[in-house]
Amino acid sequence: MSKISEDKKQLLVIGGRGALGQAIVRHFKEKNVWVASVDHGSNEEADLSLNIKRNELHTTLDQAQWIEQKLKESLQMDAATKTLDGIICVAGGWMGGNVATDDFLKSVDMMWKQSVESSVVAAYLARRFLKEGGLLVMTGAQAAAGPTPTMIGYGMAKAAVHHLIKSLAAEGSGLPRNCVVVGLLPRTLDTPNNRKFATGNEDYGSWTPLSHITGLLEKWLGSQNKDIQTAERDHNLILNIKSSSHIFQSNNKNSKKKEKKSKKMAKILSIAVALTAILFMAYALPRPQDEATEAPPAEENMEKRKPENQHTHFWPIPVLSSRNNVKARVGREKGGRVGIVGER
Amino acid sequence: MSKISEDKKQLLVIGGRGALGQAIVRHFKEKNVWVASVDHGSNEEADLSLNIKRNELHTTLDQAQWIEQKLKESLQMDAATKTLDGIICVAGGWMGGNVATDDFLKSVDMMWKQSVESSVVAAYLARRFLKEGGLLVMTGAQAAAGPTPTMIGYGMAKAAVHHLIKSLAAEGSGLPRNCVVVGLLPRTLDTPNNRKFATGNEDYGSWTPLSHITGLLEKWLGSQNKDIQTAERDHNLILNIKSSSHIFQSNNKNSKKKEKKSKKMAKILSIAVALTAILFMAYALPRPQDEATEAPPAEENMEKRKPENQHTHFWPIPVLSSRNNVKARVGREKGGRVGIVGER
Repeated sequence: MSKISEDKKQLLVIGGRGALGQAIVRHFKEKNVWVASVDHGSNEEADLSLNIKRNELHTTLDQAQWIEQKLKESLQMDAATKTLDGIICVAGGWMGGNVATDDFLKSVDMMWKQSVESSVVAAYLARRFLKEGGLLVMTGAQAAAGPTPTMIGYGMAKAAVHHLIKSLAAEGSGLPRNCVVVGLLPRTLDTPNNRKFATGNEDYGSWTPLSHITGLLEKWLGSQNKDIQTAERDHNLILNIKSSSHIFQSNNKNSKKKEKKSKKMAKILSIAVALTAILFMAYALPRPQDEATEAPPAEENMEKRKPENQHTHFWPIPVLSSRNNVKARVGREKGGRVGIVGER
Repeated sequence: MSKISEDKKQLLVIGGRGALGQAIVRHFKEKNVWVASVDHGSNEEADLSLNIKRNELHTTLDQAQWIEQKLKESLQMDAATKTLDGIICVAGGWMGGNVATDDFLKSVDMMWKQSVESSVVAAYLARRFLKEGGLLVMTGAQAAAGPTPTMIGYGMAKAAVHHLIKSLAAEGSGLPRNCVVVGLLPRTLDTPNNRKFATGNEDYGSWTPLSHITGLLEKWLGSQNKDIQTAERDHNLILNIKSSSHIFQSNNKNSKKKEKKSKKMAKILSIAVALTAILFMAYALPRPQDEATEAPPAEENMEKRKPENQHTHFWPIPVLSSRNNVKARVGREKGGRVGIVGER
């Protein structure tokens, strides 16, 4: 493989063969981004397609190390270089069932494998490949912000992913500096498969088009990360996403009545729909200013520092940059907005 | 095995060989309760000790079905009878590590196996053995109510358990009627092992004595379940636990100074210590009164009813008995109290 030109952004999509994953790969290829896809199957549109074979790579460690090796070969990187601008994990699945369902234990196991294991592999790879200031996106679910008695395994897995996202975004998680960790918490994505299993009574206009997600991802990737931080800092993220609610309008004709309805729908469903809910917090370890001239400590040493010692540092920048400034919260907002949000 | 006398309460303890599990088995044996222990190892004090052999029972389904079979034999029950008054899962473990730790993926896997799999087995067994109105207790962790960047696998597993608890407590989870689902969210239990790994700077007075937990469990088991509900209904549960803060005082002499300190400590640490945080919601499917004379629907049919149909019922009892009255919330209370609580 020829060397990737240095000004080209590089993106890894885990779950690159699913409906959303394919849309993301295609979108960023069109934007001249180098894109690698990882999935149980190939995505021929990607610059690099890694096909995880379940029967050869049993554990998450097997999978992670195999991907790691393949990426290193393709990116022609040495051990110290980190080259990816973004890692996006959209692998997952759905299986319902309560504790009375025959397949209850199977559903717990399967949802864990599909949603959680792929996400922790993403975290593992982010540690090794993501540039400072890079973007790490994982996929949760709005439903898992509350109890899911009729789809217990699914909810548990997504709750674990939400916790992973919040923890990765917190100080001391071991990610490269200034990374942005974002959780997508969709309600229903508008995919062919979801339409296939629809009962016919759905309001498709309330489903999230994949193009809306790819648009957000593009906005977030790379130089515009700062914008996410700013939005978050202003407690304004959800509003920002709300304002990009063209997705509703695009589903409505331009008659005044429809427009009114559209506005109302946008108001009511905006968060419920757009992605519905997003966490992002900047993960950052800015050096205190009085130490700014020092070389950064070796990462190995940083890892061994006890949290107590970390707390003795003063982090002077109030931009979602330390545990002191950011708390993660999962909850139901007033007005029914649900998601993970950062609060300061 | 001789038939268990019918008026004797029956309890299953999962993790009955750990420090807390042993304390629970001993406590309830002294109270004349029939106690079964499940663990990777035997507890000879229990009336029935089931030793799960990891190398023979690989999956949660293998384990759950094996326990199910053994319990049926011991309890001499037929398929329709449910006989346990309580199931308490205190199995678990701890392994730290952030994403930069060599064992990151291993820690995720191990924490899942130890905390989550044992909890879902408890849920599986609760469906099959727990009496109506029975008690199901699982063990979360206060730490997992917020991000855990330096112990990611642990936090993810406990977050999944919290979600399981909330979901089991919600309408439609498939548990027997009127069960009470409680999550213990300890900070640090005062066990020999935790003392062994203490750094020496710990305030042991702030650790939760096992006797405090066994006391609560005894209060909750059986006829006094209603008290939990009442406390919860009054938003008073945490206060109730606070008020049983003899555990602090028992660590302090009776001098006035110490007493003052003791009160202050009790105030500051009460929730942080006692269990720190508890979810409980009654899971109940009371029949609407106009159907009270009907035979209960077959459980199989109930399971197949769609959630939408369930919502068309009116649940007349405002005691934590339906989704309409109870919402589960994970969050940080004002004043630093952390936990899962029911809110209405």
